[in-house]
Amino acid sequence: MLGKGEFGRIRDLLAPLSGSGAFDLKDDAGVISGILGHEIVVTTDTIVAGVHFLGSESPEEVAAKLLRVNLSDLAAMGTKPICYTLNWSLPSSYSDEWVISFCAGLKVQQEMFDIYLLGGDSTSTPGPACLTATLFGHVPRGQLLRRAGAKSGETIFVSGTIGDGALGLLAAQGMLADLDEVLIQKLIGCYRIPEPRIRLGIALRGRASAAADISDGLLADIRHLTEIAGLGAEIKMSEIPLSCGARNAIAKNGELWQVIVGGGDDYELVFTGEPDLADSLLNVGVNITAIGKITAEPGVNLIGADGNIMQVNKEGYCHS
Amino acid sequence: MLGKGEFGRIRDLLAPLSGSGAFDLKDDAGVISGILGHEIVVTTDTIVAGVHFLGSESPEEVAAKLLRVNLSDLAAMGTKPICYTLNWSLPSSYSDEWVISFCAGLKVQQEMFDIYLLGGDSTSTPGPACLTATLFGHVPRGQLLRRAGAKSGETIFVSGTIGDGALGLLAAQGMLADLDEVLIQKLIGCYRIPEPRIRLGIALRGRASAAADISDGLLADIRHLTEIAGLGAEIKMSEIPLSCGARNAIAKNGELWQVIVGGGDDYELVFTGEPDLADSLLNVGVNITAIGKITAEPGVNLIGADGNIMQVNKEGYCHS
Repeated sequence: MLGKGEFGRIRDLLAPLSGSGAFDLKDDAGVISGILGHEIVVTTDTIVAGVHFLGSESPEEVAAKLLRVNLSDLAAMGTKPICYTLNWSLPSSYSDEWVISFCAGLKVQQEMFDIYLLGGDSTSTPGPACLTATLFGHVPRGQLLRRAGAKSGETIFVSGTIGDGALGLLAAQGMLADLDEVLIQKLIGCYRIPEPRIRLGIALRGRASAAADISDGLLADIRHLTEIAGLGAEIKMSEIPLSCGARNAIAKNGELWQVIVGGGDDYELVFTGEPDLADSLLNVGVNITAIGKITAEPGVNLIGADGNIMQVNKEGYCHS
Repeated sequence: MLGKGEFGRIRDLLAPLSGSGAFDLKDDAGVISGILGHEIVVTTDTIVAGVHFLGSESPEEVAAKLLRVNLSDLAAMGTKPICYTLNWSLPSSYSDEWVISFCAGLKVQQEMFDIYLLGGDSTSTPGPACLTATLFGHVPRGQLLRRAGAKSGETIFVSGTIGDGALGLLAAQGMLADLDEVLIQKLIGCYRIPEPRIRLGIALRGRASAAADISDGLLADIRHLTEIAGLGAEIKMSEIPLSCGARNAIAKNGELWQVIVGGGDDYELVFTGEPDLADSLLNVGVNITAIGKITAEPGVNLIGADGNIMQVNKEGYCHS
């Protein structure tokens, strides 16, 4: 590695991102001081070039995605983010310039979500870039949102619109070429920079009976919520909130609804509760839509406009 | 990926390793309940196949090394380990069999160090295996061991013997072929399965003025301790504790002392304090040796048997 080298990158680029308990990244570990009556929530995600990002993204976009997919997990648990650790394994082709832009991207996200860098590890790799972020947050003891807890008859809600991430991936791969360019860019933006629903997650504490973020795909993540409770779900296709881009994409190719319910990368929240739960969620910065009900009978069924069960090909993305 | 697939591996192999607050790995995040009056210490390390392990190790050895390099960082901070998260990015060539053995190796280490799995992420990669572990421990508030704190005139101590890890790497690469086979295997063992000095770290709370683990190389890590305090150090080559294997290796090739003081991968602790500090460390399960003194003058000097400063070529390994 020419240029700054490992220690130079840590000192010049990462240490300025560090905060309380990180000891300027000069120590063997970092420290989180807990808050009395709160628990520390930990989540971690890895993204690999060529698998989770395409390589055509800007370094700032990669930084944003890395932190945001983790922040989305914290949101799903009703957690307020505190800080994160970062492990990067970079090939020698990643120049100081790339790393400088990547760190600038981290800084933007840190300010946006009020988090700081606690520590990490910097290594080289002969393979594709491999980036891990581990996010820490806190939640008042006993108020953690869990996947388990949904009850039969409860309403299933989602935030935002569904399918934009998965369609954005297709668009980025040039597979939605007949769509309007503005819509294409909007969908690609949803794929590249998802919006973690932190405010919503915190608002759901003590209100939602169960919650998860939609990363594997709407139906797969609903299955996670229901299976853990020994229940099922009935989802109405017509109630699933779609963006303008998604509606246009379906109008051009009717089969794309499969991607929307199965494709993943939404990073919206799906949660369950009483039918009037949405009434108390007017100030969370995102639309909330009821899309179905928890059923006593196991299995997740998607109901079409004709009242029949729709045959889904691909229920969520398996990182295999 | 044929076989268990991502979800099958998590359910069948990883969930049984999980403990309190991991929710059977079915939730979006895990929870650490702090202990009143204690701080949570966090450290993380990544190992990449071909960079940090050779690929010829058994999966159990890879698991041991991954956890132990992190446990060594916790030891250096005087921390009692609690749990860890694990991120693996594995190429499709890593069979279920490999993963089963790797998880069996994790289990052995978990029982040895009384830790459990809190969460993680499982992804595929087109490149070499990339494994990240993030370790969590606790320490009574105010008793954290730090790198900063050494004072002029204090004695510098190390645990165990120095250089075996770096010589073990050379041995594993076939570069110490003229050494006795028993010694070769012993050195390779030190490289592959380092011994984190948890008991020593805890015993040093409130006693050592500064501490670090020796991962970058003895002189490099002493430089870290001294630079942060604006001081220097004088180390006596003749006092550096050497194993039988290291002494034999030097006898065959006099230049290998450079590898011993500069090579890294020791995972022993280096720490500073009053000259009689070692007297209170008789029950920590490892020998303690005084190797030099902190000096007011900056710079780390290695003093030879003739009283002259030795010229060191390579001061620590930079992961470039």
